[in-house]
Amino acid sequence: MPSTSAVSPLSLNRLSLYLRSLRELRRQGLKRISSQELADRFHLSAALIRKDLAQFGEFGIRGIGYEIDSLISRLDSLLGLDREHRIIVVGMGSLGVALTRYLEGNRGTFRVVAGLDEDKGKVGKQIGRIPVHDVSEVDRVVRETGAEIAMLTLPPESAQATCDDLARAGIRAILNFAPVQIQVAPSIPTKSVDVQVHLEELAFFLRA
Amino acid sequence: MPSTSAVSPLSLNRLSLYLRSLRELRRQGLKRISSQELADRFHLSAALIRKDLAQFGEFGIRGIGYEIDSLISRLDSLLGLDREHRIIVVGMGSLGVALTRYLEGNRGTFRVVAGLDEDKGKVGKQIGRIPVHDVSEVDRVVRETGAEIAMLTLPPESAQATCDDLARAGIRAILNFAPVQIQVAPSIPTKSVDVQVHLEELAFFLRA
Repeated sequence: MPSTSAVSPLSLNRLSLYLRSLRELRRQGLKRISSQELADRFHLSAALIRKDLAQFGEFGIRGIGYEIDSLISRLDSLLGLDREHRIIVVGMGSLGVALTRYLEGNRGTFRVVAGLDEDKGKVGKQIGRIPVHDVSEVDRVVRETGAEIAMLTLPPESAQATCDDLARAGIRAILNFAPVQIQVAPSIPTKSVDVQVHLEELAFFLRA
Repeated sequence: MPSTSAVSPLSLNRLSLYLRSLRELRRQGLKRISSQELADRFHLSAALIRKDLAQFGEFGIRGIGYEIDSLISRLDSLLGLDREHRIIVVGMGSLGVALTRYLEGNRGTFRVVAGLDEDKGKVGKQIGRIPVHDVSEVDRVVRETGAEIAMLTLPPESAQATCDDLARAGIRAILNFAPVQIQVAPSIPTKSVDVQVHLEELAFFLRA
C-alpha cells in the first residue's frame, strides 16, 4: 500500500466518491460491477477507476469486474472508515446545529458526541441527544468523549484561538467552516469548507 | 484579461482568498500592502500573489506595494462581485435554513431571495424575511426573483430531478450540498460541498 503521503488529495477524494457509488449499488442489490459500468452510472472515467484501484492492489477481473462487497470493505479500511470517529461541533449557531442534526442520522463511522459554545444560554441544552458544553471545557470534553475531529462553525474572529485550544486538548483533525484561514500544526490535518468562496467562484462564471 | 476558461479553478480560489485578506486589511484601516506583507499576514506565497495578480495586469510598485482599495475593486470586477447575485435555497431542512440564515447577514453581492420546499407545512412560512415557496413553482420563482444561483440542500434522491427543473427554469449556477453527484449542462457551472467526503478525507489521515 502506498504511504499516506503518496495518496494525493484528489485521488483520496475520488476513492471517497467510488465508495459512495459502490454503497449505492450494494443498496440496489448488485454484487459485481465492471469499471466501465461504474464509470457509466456515476459519470466517472473507467480508465481512472482502474488506475486508482490498481494503485491499492485492487484489480477487476476481465468480464466479471469488481466484487462490490469486498471492494467496499477494502476501501473502508484504506480510508480509515472501518471504525468510529467521534466529532465535536464547536460553535452551536444555526450552522453548527444544522450540521449536528445532519450527522445525527449517521451511523457507524462519524458520530457527533458533543457541541461546544461560549454562550451560557446554550450550554447545558441538547441538540437531539447531543449535549452542548461550555467551550472553556474543551480539554475535558475531548478527553472524556474521545473526540478526534472538531467541526468549527464559529465566527471568524474566534476561530484561530479556538483552534489553538483544540490542538492543546488533543484533537486530531479539523473541518473548518469559519470563513477564515486557520493555522494549525501540520500533524493536525485540516479541511476548509467556505460557502462564500464557492459562491464567489460561481459568480466568476456569471459575469455577463 | 485572460478569458474565463484560462483561469484555473485553483487560481480563482486564490483570488477569492486574496480578496478576503485585502478586505480584512481595509477594515483594519490599511491603504497599501506589499505582496510580501500580504503573504506573511495570511500565510500565502508572495511569489504566487505577484504571479496571480500580474496575470490580470495588476503590478505592485516596488517599495510601495499594491493600493488596497483599487485592488479590491479590480478583483471584485474580475470575479463578477461588483453586482448582486440572487440565490434560491432549494430544500428548507435544517441545512437549508442554516445556510439561509448564514447568508441573510450578507450585504451586496450574494442575496438569498427565496427558499423552496416540497413540504406543504413549510410553504408560505418565512425564514427571517425570506419566503418559502412550493418547489413546484420553481419556474415562477426564478423568473420573478431573477435568481441566478441555486443552493441545493435536498435529500440525495431528489437532487437530480430538481437540478433538471432548475436548469429548465433558467438557473445559471448551482452550489450542491446534497451528498450525490449531479449532472447538468456544461453551461451551468456547479460546485459541490460534501461534508461526508471531507470527513472521509480527514479519517484517512487518522488511520492509527
